[in-house]
Amino acid sequence: MPFLSSAWYVAAFSREITVDAPLARTLLDRAIVLYREASGAVVALDDRCPHRFAPLSRGRLIDGALECPYHGLRFGAAGTCVLNPHGDGRVPAGAVVRRYPTRERYGAIWIWFGEAHEAATVPLPEFEFLDPLHNFTCDGYLLTQANYQLSADNLLDLSHFQYLHPDTLGSDMMARGTVQSASEGDTVWVHRAMRGEILQPFVGRSFGVPDGKAADRDLDVRWQPPGLLTITVSVREAGAAPEMTRVGMSAHWLTPETAATTHYFFSFGLPREMGDEGEALVRFSVEGLMKPFRDEDLPMLEAQQRAIGERDFWSLRPALLPIDAGAVRARRIMERLIADDLAYLNAAVPGAPQRVAGCVSEVSGR
Amino acid sequence: MPFLSSAWYVAAFSREITVDAPLARTLLDRAIVLYREASGAVVALDDRCPHRFAPLSRGRLIDGALECPYHGLRFGAAGTCVLNPHGDGRVPAGAVVRRYPTRERYGAIWIWFGEAHEAATVPLPEFEFLDPLHNFTCDGYLLTQANYQLSADNLLDLSHFQYLHPDTLGSDMMARGTVQSASEGDTVWVHRAMRGEILQPFVGRSFGVPDGKAADRDLDVRWQPPGLLTITVSVREAGAAPEMTRVGMSAHWLTPETAATTHYFFSFGLPREMGDEGEALVRFSVEGLMKPFRDEDLPMLEAQQRAIGERDFWSLRPALLPIDAGAVRARRIMERLIADDLAYLNAAVPGAPQRVAGCVSEVSGR
Amino acid sequence: MPFLSSAWYVAAFSREITVDAPLARTLLDRAIVLYREASGAVVALDDRCPHRFAPLSRGRLIDGALECPYHGLRFGAAGTCVLNPHGDGRVPAGAVVRRYPTRERYGAIWIWFGEAHEAATVPLPEFEFLDPLHNFTCDGYLLTQANYQLSADNLLDLSHFQYLHPDTLGSDMMARGTVQSASEGDTVWVHRAMRGEILQPFVGRSFGVPDGKAADRDLDVRWQPPGLLTITVSVREAGAAPEMTRVGMSAHWLTPETAATTHYFFSFGLPREMGDEGEALVRFSVEGLMKPFRDEDLPMLEAQQRAIGERDFWSLRPALLPIDAGAVRARRIMERLIADDLAYLNAAVPGAPQRVAGCVSEVSGR
Repeated sequence: MPFLSSAWYVAAFSREITVDAPLARTLLDRAIVLYREASGAVVALDDRCPHRFAPLSRGRLIDGALECPYHGLRFGAAGTCVLNPHGDGRVPAGAVVRRYPTRERYGAIWIWFGEAHEAATVPLPEFEFLDPLHNFTCDGYLLTQANYQLSADNLLDLSHFQYLHPDTLGSDMMARGTVQSASEGDTVWVHRAMRGEILQPFVGRSFGVPDGKAADRDLDVRWQPPGLLTITVSVREAGAAPEMTRVGMSAHWLTPETAATTHYFFSFGLPREMGDEGEALVRFSVEGLMKPFRDEDLPMLEAQQRAIGERDFWSLRPALLPIDAGAVRARRIMERLIADDLAYLNAAVPGAPQRVAGCVSEVSGR
Repeated sequence: MPFLSSAWYVAAFSREITVDAPLARTLLDRAIVLYREASGAVVALDDRCPHRFAPLSRGRLIDGALECPYHGLRFGAAGTCVLNPHGDGRVPAGAVVRRYPTRERYGAIWIWFGEAHEAATVPLPEFEFLDPLHNFTCDGYLLTQANYQLSADNLLDLSHFQYLHPDTLGSDMMARGTVQSASEGDTVWVHRAMRGEILQPFVGRSFGVPDGKAADRDLDVRWQPPGLLTITVSVREAGAAPEMTRVGMSAHWLTPETAATTHYFFSFGLPREMGDEGEALVRFSVEGLMKPFRDEDLPMLEAQQRAIGERDFWSLRPALLPIDAGAVRARRIMERLIADDLAYLNAAVPGAPQRVAGCVSEVSGR
Repeated sequence: MPFLSSAWYVAAFSREITVDAPLARTLLDRAIVLYREASGAVVALDDRCPHRFAPLSRGRLIDGALECPYHGLRFGAAGTCVLNPHGDGRVPAGAVVRRYPTRERYGAIWIWFGEAHEAATVPLPEFEFLDPLHNFTCDGYLLTQANYQLSADNLLDLSHFQYLHPDTLGSDMMARGTVQSASEGDTVWVHRAMRGEILQPFVGRSFGVPDGKAADRDLDVRWQPPGLLTITVSVREAGAAPEMTRVGMSAHWLTPETAATTHYFFSFGLPREMGDEGEALVRFSVEGLMKPFRDEDLPMLEAQQRAIGERDFWSLRPALLPIDAGAVRARRIMERLIADDLAYLNAAVPGAPQRVAGCVSEVSGR
């Protein structure tokens, strides 16, 4: 299935992009180079010199332009060649690389693969709890050898905590928790509630529930296209007053590297008003989750990918359970958005309906 | 070429299948999970949960059922879901995995990929010398990066002992030995006789011929579809009475893992009435053969596979020698059986002739 | 794009081919075995026994014939089976492997993939400075994971010294040097001149220019099909008399291993009349160049190959600069020669025009 172009994807964490060293990263099957101008503005270009296809990301940054490491052509933030050091220095017409719109927010660099003029009209989704001005944040990253929608399925059905993460995140009560899902526009919510649950020490400690004490835990997952999720965990001692509830929020951003590999960015945020405790807690969360994510989720996602191979997910006729409702809604939304985009791209006839969503990116031949 | 389905293949040695730990093994391009019920009965299922395609083989065995490691669905020996731990616990209609008929005999687990109702009508081939009640047995296993029919070719023409195994199994007389081949029904025999041969120490010791003494050696190979061979070696000192002949028998079972890789199971058996000497001898045989099989046969088979690639064997127009007669018969039998099965599978017209043989397995898309 | 057959390619350095041990090497997607007869003549055969496709290169050389390591058939220098050790010893009609014409000159073994009778009519290109009778020579080899024409592009535009090899071969003046290219028949020349250049120590030392002294440097590249280059470097102190110029010559021979990998043979030669200094200098050159070739050129060529993938070079619409003139001429010559050969191969009609060039090799299916 092609990728959805007209959407904001996370390309990198902000801290990864510097003025000194360009970053090479494959996104939606395209080789991209990212760097920062002296002004702090982030530039994203095709990482392929139009002359002989050398990777620009191996070149030097000189005066805000990127020098090709093979023959020294320099490309500026607009993607045009700004210097040809050879002969009379004339720049040939085709010496230009594609430039992608970017934004920087929530500690991340966002990139747009659709038509550039549309980027300005589409707002970023909201992750206010990661605004570094008001919050402590801590983030983590994993490269997953599986399609990004398998990761979305994973995050939209947290019942798997019981089976895949029994020693950290799960409990014997999760499968029996109540589950509700809903959608509004292109956003999907899944709510799961456990009452009187005995938490694993990692979760108990994160939310201040003493070992062995029963707790009430609510998990709220919000999904938005193309694969941007917020998980809100609310915990209190069983029977405690609602105002005693402690809340933890995390963002989970899925960006396809290729059809079968995914950049998984995740980030935790807590209000700065919590002081040292908040700062320690976001760090504790990321450090504690890296192990189950890497050693338990990743092998499962990668086994699913191997089982599916290059086939369409639905062609394998998965058995559907009520717990899949949210994940299925998300998949159906993506299918509709991608189909809309293909229709838009193919509609060259006059009087064709105006596009609403975006356009599907062409997959570069790999 | 597709695989022959309506045939018994060896899936594993008996000792590999336990009540505690499921075994994952790819057979005929299918991911299979094998385990043993408390009763001792062996269960073989598709190793892919029908819900989200997780490998069941990574799950736990609980009360004779296999629990999916991702969301906890449990599957029983019939392949049906016997427990859905979520919500109201109802089991959706599609929550079933394919179950394959199995048998246990000759120290091995046999599996049937054709239509289940036909399995009961087809007997296992005979390998009575491996019946553990009456025989000492010892077995070995190698995974070969080559098509299973290249291994059958290898075993059906033992003249290669002289060139590929000169220090263990061969002698300078093998190429000049007399060779005869025959077939009856779908069984192929090749007989090779050497007279007055000076044996390598490994063979001499196995059959009680003193170093340097001339011997008469007969090699009898029996092949049956899809790749089940018995090799009978008969040796006596040159000129000794026929009743002084010592005989060693071994089974060689070839099961395709994929079109280009093969599970090679082999097993030696000697009558329990031989006492300690018999027990020591089967062990001596397997230990002594592992090195030439692994270090001499495997590299050759894998080089052949690389040379052939995905092309049809015959499309390369191999030069045919008289020594190839048995191997060519075996290949022709397999081609006929597979063609018959394809015809049977394609025959949906009323009044079509009744199937005699079996059906060709669909290759799962990998 | 198919390979050009009717051309001499370098298969190996002379010293690699011995009477004792056959050499296996893939050339133009074909598995080839090379060995030397007692007379010193070099034999090149398809490295695949016609019986069961075993690699002959793993066999023994016996009396100038190559014994198949699997079943002992022996093949002589003509490619025909000269011994069948089995049964009555008759050799079946198809037991023959293709033999390729070879020549030995300039310290290298040259091989011809076109029709054998044409080889005699096509002279080797000249590399007299490598004639070992009159010259000291020293050579090097690298296997490159990139198409051979990317290496030719690299050698035909030495302006890349400035960017890719700034610490060894380059200088800040190279991009501003004057460049001229020309062609005559199927030969391409590129001349680049730098005046008053401050050389890197490696170059200065090679040509006797004291550190920090300005020099005049000329680089002359000659290219011939299919990928045979001579680079002549001429250096003198700036303003010195022309007769003070020192000259270094090197050959660069590109032989496709596959469409995406290349055998890169290079060799330096200096007249024996230079004595010890000449001998030391050719060694100094190869040792000094191995590092920039391996650590700077190879990664760049391989990155280009990954960016291009299996696509046609021109389909990516490279921006063309004046410095590319020589490389583009060479690519166009190759395209014409290959097209001519395809036309020749396809011309079965009587009265079709006589072939002038050669024939395109069939790519073996890999």
